[in-house]
Amino acid sequence: MHKEGLDYYISFNPVNIYYLTNFANKVHERPFILIIATEGIPKMLVPLLEKGHVETRSRCELEFISYYEFPAPEGQNWYDHYRNLIEDDVKVGIESAMPAGIAEKTPGKKIIIDIIDEVRIIKTEYEIGRTVHACRVVNKGHKKLLKICKPKMLEFALYQEVTNTMTTKIVTDIPNANFIMTNTAGAVWPPSFSHEPHIVPNIFAEMEEGGPHVSIVSAQVDGYGVEIERTFFLGYVPEKAKEPFEVMFGARALAYDFVKPGVIMSEIDKKVRKFITDRGYGDYIIHRTGHGLGITGHEAPYIAEGYDRKLKPNMVISIEPGIYIPGLGGFRHSDTVLITEDGYLKLTKAPEKLEDLIIE
Amino acid sequence: MHKEGLDYYISFNPVNIYYLTNFANKVHERPFILIIATEGIPKMLVPLLEKGHVETRSRCELEFISYYEFPAPEGQNWYDHYRNLIEDDVKVGIESAMPAGIAEKTPGKKIIIDIIDEVRIIKTEYEIGRTVHACRVVNKGHKKLLKICKPKMLEFALYQEVTNTMTTKIVTDIPNANFIMTNTAGAVWPPSFSHEPHIVPNIFAEMEEGGPHVSIVSAQVDGYGVEIERTFFLGYVPEKAKEPFEVMFGARALAYDFVKPGVIMSEIDKKVRKFITDRGYGDYIIHRTGHGLGITGHEAPYIAEGYDRKLKPNMVISIEPGIYIPGLGGFRHSDTVLITEDGYLKLTKAPEKLEDLIIE
Repeated sequence: MHKEGLDYYISFNPVNIYYLTNFANKVHERPFILIIATEGIPKMLVPLLEKGHVETRSRCELEFISYYEFPAPEGQNWYDHYRNLIEDDVKVGIESAMPAGIAEKTPGKKIIIDIIDEVRIIKTEYEIGRTVHACRVVNKGHKKLLKICKPKMLEFALYQEVTNTMTTKIVTDIPNANFIMTNTAGAVWPPSFSHEPHIVPNIFAEMEEGGPHVSIVSAQVDGYGVEIERTFFLGYVPEKAKEPFEVMFGARALAYDFVKPGVIMSEIDKKVRKFITDRGYGDYIIHRTGHGLGITGHEAPYIAEGYDRKLKPNMVISIEPGIYIPGLGGFRHSDTVLITEDGYLKLTKAPEKLEDLIIE
Repeated sequence: MHKEGLDYYISFNPVNIYYLTNFANKVHERPFILIIATEGIPKMLVPLLEKGHVETRSRCELEFISYYEFPAPEGQNWYDHYRNLIEDDVKVGIESAMPAGIAEKTPGKKIIIDIIDEVRIIKTEYEIGRTVHACRVVNKGHKKLLKICKPKMLEFALYQEVTNTMTTKIVTDIPNANFIMTNTAGAVWPPSFSHEPHIVPNIFAEMEEGGPHVSIVSAQVDGYGVEIERTFFLGYVPEKAKEPFEVMFGARALAYDFVKPGVIMSEIDKKVRKFITDRGYGDYIIHRTGHGLGITGHEAPYIAEGYDRKLKPNMVISIEPGIYIPGLGGFRHSDTVLITEDGYLKLTKAPEKLEDLIIE
């Protein structure tokens, strides 16, 4: 804030408010706004209805200002209070995620700046501990998935067993987990649609003979999001799937060769894309090599062309180069990876090699 | 758009994009932007990774423009494409929910306007049918809840049984339900914290003897959100709970007396607040009388002071005046209600009277 000459920084993004205060909210029509001045206790504007909730969950000193309701009688709306909390002749940082309707009612000279998102990129020791635990949860879920998955099994049945396994571990380990910040997902994309990694599977979709099947097991565990994904086969590996698997596997090994502090992230993505393209699969790349994980499961930093920043210790990222061939399927392994002082530590664990990923 | 002299209307809010196209997305770092001109086929800017997903799910004519990735090499980012889709000298409507970072990169002379949110207030016949079905789902969930709830039962066990009941009905009735737009919740606030309606219960919280317990059963069923809530008692009604229950019950009856087309919504809230205040419970009101439901479970219109618009046929609202007394508990019934040509139709069903809400 000092560097940017800001008098105030306004946080509206629920992810950042959670990071700063431990209070979680879902965005709905009633605004929660955190007002941070360069000095003094931060102020939080909250609906009267939620005051008790915020006070119970928040773990830092905050001054609360509550408003009547949304909407409210004239003079008692959230924006009536908001405009009294910030002077008109000051410089105010607002987050890029702030809705235009809130930005419009923010007093002062505004600039868009994401200070908290930036701070979140490097994890604290506490956060690393929480991430390691979250990875144990998805490791357990993924192990279960590979154990029960078989041809003709329904997506829905897989989902139920895998998420139950993870949820049971979460509530056992963290009985007071905040369920606004906890969720689990476990699914498999069978070969008939594994080339579309962001489609939402029909719950009655069936597992198939052969593959490539692609698993996605992810969880946000009381605030911390991680993932593990594998390309696997049921019974046998179709001949045509062998080469793309090996290309994906090689691209992934190449990426890991460069995962260490000081390496420019876009360079990793460029090398991975070149490796895949040189082997004739360039048309089947549809996403970057990886992304950061933290409170959300998708956030900065990005292992992507155009993201020319260096890896640093205590970043947490995914490494997941993928190849997606319509009519054949998708090929992708993903792991949650901690950047250490001199390299990396893979926090998620599951079989990696082709021969270990043929489920009988 | 013609009335406001707009050349373009930009929709970014995923709820509105779903309403218009049937394609559902969760907000993450990769933007999806719907660009509607006054004439011609709307354009949708999507990440390359999601193009197949959007094409599969969308149910209207759209021209797709896909971008490389987020982030991307210079000249291939989402905003590089975005700025080519809108001229500089035009008038552009942006939604109040649009993030400041997207608004900043939107060309043209911008005004904040929520045309689609406005259209969504009056439901179509199709939407009413879907809402009626969603109410059958929560009715079934709530019936289950009242059947199994007993002292010492854990929040988590209740949640599991009630949501399983609803999920099973949903997947039976709508096998191809979109699970991005489907979720269920079933919980009870026992008397030790039912005075805090927006707190998140600990999953190991126990049901208690007596009451007031307050149930919340809600669901978004393949896109349509509804709710039913009841104040109930396990075994007996504590003497001190009788009067506030009757005051809540009377306030609710008063509200329903005015629920019909032509009545100004703020007037209903004022009458309800006066009724409760006149009986000595004014300090225990912490929220409005009701809110609209539709794709989300909380949206315009609002039965609230400061919302001076008239009820109209085919609105769907909740009626849920509440009283929250620390040390005693909360008192609130909520139903999902359709405004008809000459009154209303309560779409959710569960016992309402005190004597019918004492569970043995």
